[in-house]
Amino acid sequence: MSSPGVPETSVLAIASHVAYGYVGNTMATFVMQSLGCEVTAINTVHYSNHTGYKQFKGRKATADEILDLYAGLAQSGLNDAFDVLLSGYIPSADAVAAVGKIARDLRLLGARRPGGFFWVLDPVMGDQGRLYVPKACVPAYKALLPSADLILPNQFEAELLSDTKITDLSSLARAVHVLHRVHGVPHVVITSLRLDHTSTYKTTDAEPGEEKKEEEEEEAQQQTLTIIGSTSTTSHKPRLFRIDVPAYPIFFSGTGDMFAALAVARLREAVAEAGLLRVRSWKSGDEVRSGEGLPLARACERVCASMGAVLGKTAVGVRGWEGREGERGGGGGGKGDGDNGEGEGVERARHLARTRAAEVKVVRNVEDLRVPPGVERFRARAVDVDVDFDADVGVGGGQG
Amino acid sequence: MSSPGVPETSVLAIASHVAYGYVGNTMATFVMQSLGCEVTAINTVHYSNHTGYKQFKGRKATADEILDLYAGLAQSGLNDAFDVLLSGYIPSADAVAAVGKIARDLRLLGARRPGGFFWVLDPVMGDQGRLYVPKACVPAYKALLPSADLILPNQFEAELLSDTKITDLSSLARAVHVLHRVHGVPHVVITSLRLDHTSTYKTTDAEPGEEKKEEEEEEAQQQTLTIIGSTSTTSHKPRLFRIDVPAYPIFFSGTGDMFAALAVARLREAVAEAGLLRVRSWKSGDEVRSGEGLPLARACERVCASMGAVLGKTAVGVRGWEGREGERGGGGGGKGDGDNGEGEGVERARHLARTRAAEVKVVRNVEDLRVPPGVERFRARAVDVDVDFDADVGVGGGQG
Repeated sequence: MSSPGVPETSVLAIASHVAYGYVGNTMATFVMQSLGCEVTAINTVHYSNHTGYKQFKGRKATADEILDLYAGLAQSGLNDAFDVLLSGYIPSADAVAAVGKIARDLRLLGARRPGGFFWVLDPVMGDQGRLYVPKACVPAYKALLPSADLILPNQFEAELLSDTKITDLSSLARAVHVLHRVHGVPHVVITSLRLDHTSTYKTTDAEPGEEKKEEEEEEAQQQTLTIIGSTSTTSHKPRLFRIDVPAYPIFFSGTGDMFAALAVARLREAVAEAGLLRVRSWKSGDEVRSGEGLPLARACERVCASMGAVLGKTAVGVRGWEGREGERGGGGGGKGDGDNGEGEGVERARHLARTRAAEVKVVRNVEDLRVPPGVERFRARAVDVDVDFDADVGVGGGQG
Repeated sequence: MSSPGVPETSVLAIASHVAYGYVGNTMATFVMQSLGCEVTAINTVHYSNHTGYKQFKGRKATADEILDLYAGLAQSGLNDAFDVLLSGYIPSADAVAAVGKIARDLRLLGARRPGGFFWVLDPVMGDQGRLYVPKACVPAYKALLPSADLILPNQFEAELLSDTKITDLSSLARAVHVLHRVHGVPHVVITSLRLDHTSTYKTTDAEPGEEKKEEEEEEAQQQTLTIIGSTSTTSHKPRLFRIDVPAYPIFFSGTGDMFAALAVARLREAVAEAGLLRVRSWKSGDEVRSGEGLPLARACERVCASMGAVLGKTAVGVRGWEGREGERGGGGGGKGDGDNGEGEGVERARHLARTRAAEVKVVRNVEDLRVPPGVERFRARAVDVDVDFDADVGVGGGQG
């Protein structure tokens, strides 16, 4: 039994594998399988655990190894029915190019049927100003954008790909416009945006009587992350929507992979509901004028509801750990090996224990993946910005 | 939400990984996760697809790579809470020894709590008289047997490990006795046994009025595979039970891995029900005199019920494919590339398509994994054999 509305979906997932914990394909495979998708997984690294632990062992797959596994599928015709390619962390520019080659091959195979192939590209490059892949990956990803159907950058990655600094909703809208128009990406979702609180914005569906006191509003904003999505019109203009989600003061790993995996299943579902599965790139016609009416918005609402529930439960576990840690006087996570000082070893043990406690609890909360709870609390709202999309998008948006 | 009765279980799974399809860890990880287990997976090969296709690409992990991933877990203390090690396909004798090293380390870590660590060893070496690992793996596995808690050989592997030819229930019982007594394995399940139809056996709980005509019985036997299990007494004598399951005239891959993965979760469940989780090797006391009273028997019933349901549904799909194949005149599976003769290419294409159709459909039948249907049709029955277990088990059962 798959999740009620998700149509049969066959996915090729190319991302990292960790033995312990939930990031990359280790996260995405389980999440998509839980929603009834058939997943073929090519792993780009084989690590003991994710890098958030600050120590790990294992090896990266080379571009040739990735292509070899794909060639193995191709020689037996096992690559002939993928509805979706989901690509995540890729450790080198060569390997990024290799994944682009695979995507083009799948696009050719899918061309027999309209809407027959869809590439969800998560351009994993870095976060909060810091690159964690080789520099050469940035132009390598830019070169692939015209082949992608949906990209899922975070704020930093969206800035890198669009050559646009994002400081407020207007600059964000301009960045999305560059991705749509210059790079030809039909669908964009920018995850985990922390908008400058002083920036002004208005949403088109602000309900009367919902005004809050300024103080309350500021507090609410501080605990909120914003997801911004858009599907371009035929003239490559953005149709923007936003969803505000609770932000936890905890560093979770793998949430981007979780978002991407849920998005694959939920977008298939929403696109099927809208009758667009046989339309190229599953794009809504221009009669859908506002972002909140997009299947992408419906999908993101369900994704955010599942993530809100699972991250909320994971956060409860982390707080429990912190509580026990506090009672023990802060030495928790150590092995009781005599190192009770305030030294580096204790700090390191605490970091390991905290990181472990923050592993996202997907397996025991699979029902929250299958039936997104409280989806009404994650309604997408159209975003109206004061930007003239008919003006030139600028040379800065060209391929770098 | 885990399957109702399976207690929290953390598993280290060491086995193969295929990008496409369901064997090894690709099968076992999903199956155990579906039953609520937390699974850490170390992959021993990285292949495009299983070898039943007769062609594949990818690479084997070396013994050093396997140990390196484990060392990665160990350096961050992530190996400190495994309840179960499940080991499956291991591609070399060196790698078998490496897994033995890992098992001994986990045993030491688990020694702090009684019953705290349990190794399910599937000694994947070959089938039906044919070895598909290097010869040196046989003594390598024999050397590990004293460290294992439950082994899951097929008939051929049980013969190799016990140095006992199995032709009937008596020789089978002697083989199991050797595994218990000479090799010190507490629990043994021999999967997919095709007993010589002319052999005689009696079951202790044959119901009166259940006699069938000889003809009917023969037909029933021909479509039946037998699972034989045993947990040793304190004097290392077998307590045997059997479960007869439907055999399909279809070659499925990954069924051994599926059995092993389900067995991990269901044995945890049955052992918890019997209050034995804190007993060394989860062994029932000698007051349980008959095999059918063992938690291992309860576990195998639930495993067989889930497998019966999922394989039955998969078989329906294969028959559908065969039907369409017949209508098309037997050229199915080909790419319509002009090779319409009766040549090698057509035969190969047909083999690939049939093998693909026979991939076990676990993802879309996850409810059959979580709630085993019709378990009453898979009741374990005690096996009574005319063997004197007090007699010498013979030198042939020694190591090497």
